[in-house]
Amino acid sequence: MSRPAVKPARRADAQHNAEKILEAAVTCLSRNPDASVSDIAHAAGVGRVTLYGHFPSRADLIEAALTRLLGQGDEVLERLDLAGDPREALRVLIESSWLLIAQASAVLEAAQAVLAPGRLHELHAKPEQRVGDLIGRGQAEGVFRRDLPASWLAGVMHHVIKGAATDVADGRLDRTDAPRFISETVLGACRPVDEERGPAGH
Amino acid sequence: MSRPAVKPARRADAQHNAEKILEAAVTCLSRNPDASVSDIAHAAGVGRVTLYGHFPSRADLIEAALTRLLGQGDEVLERLDLAGDPREALRVLIESSWLLIAQASAVLEAAQAVLAPGRLHELHAKPEQRVGDLIGRGQAEGVFRRDLPASWLAGVMHHVIKGAATDVADGRLDRTDAPRFISETVLGACRPVDEERGPAGH
Repeated sequence: MSRPAVKPARRADAQHNAEKILEAAVTCLSRNPDASVSDIAHAAGVGRVTLYGHFPSRADLIEAALTRLLGQGDEVLERLDLAGDPREALRVLIESSWLLIAQASAVLEAAQAVLAPGRLHELHAKPEQRVGDLIGRGQAEGVFRRDLPASWLAGVMHHVIKGAATDVADGRLDRTDAPRFISETVLGACRPVDEERGPAGH
Repeated sequence: MSRPAVKPARRADAQHNAEKILEAAVTCLSRNPDASVSDIAHAAGVGRVTLYGHFPSRADLIEAALTRLLGQGDEVLERLDLAGDPREALRVLIESSWLLIAQASAVLEAAQAVLAPGRLHELHAKPEQRVGDLIGRGQAEGVFRRDLPASWLAGVMHHVIKGAATDVADGRLDRTDAPRFISETVLGACRPVDEERGPAGH
């Protein structure tokens, strides 16, 4: 159902520019949630006029960047089989999407300053629900601890992912180690506490 | 060895103002690492001139606030017995100083923009070492996992503490739950991985 092919080369160019701008927005906003439209245009190698031609305001650009990231995350998650053992499912979820989650968190932080809370919630309710449901199922099946709420454990996953992304950016963590370190840590934090805890138990 | 007692009331006032300014600096910078000198003076209920009388620049103020926080943390840790079971020691360390650690992290973030890296390192090397040593001892004694580096596990403690502080600030976590949630999570993440891990093991 494509439109009549007027100036297809120009349309392809425009599409390519929009992609470049969105990628640059994610990169810049991950580093600094206050990154300006000029910073992002510069990083994308386009002028501000071109950028504004695609995204009329900084808020539009941030919303588009966040929507794109969450869409990519959704595609990744749709392809995963999260129905089996919740531990294996959580490991696969983390290792396949930690970087997208880290980027989405950073862009979400930028978005908090410019988008309405209702719109923000709408955008990230679905991925959040997916993680919360998985952890809740693990608790119900007895493979995840129940002495801490599922919402806290889901938050811990986000905190560890964001921290790891910062560690990678600051050169304290090798990017190739990150997925395993994160998943091992979060699975450890979710494991049920057994009796033999020694003097640390209470 | 006090100086001759000229204007003792005025000296006490000045001391009181300096304390108020440092407390306001910690509060403001925890919320926003870019908080300005005016924001901090306003929160302390003093004028900018008074503030600059105590701290000639924003960098001086940030360094003083960070030094004070780290000093308070040091006092708390000095009073703790960290020599026993590393799990119990880590729990006590976290529950007694999570809030100071969260505040110090936030002020450290502000400090990164204004202090020399060498000075920064000097300021927080000691508390960092203490946590790293404790986790290393736990690994050596076999009560903490050895498949992840001690430096990463110490980082996880910081990421979870910072995340919890944000959750408390945003109303997603009750402040009274925070110490137990954090310590349970970090101890869980540090526990050695046993054999019977089910399909999630590899």
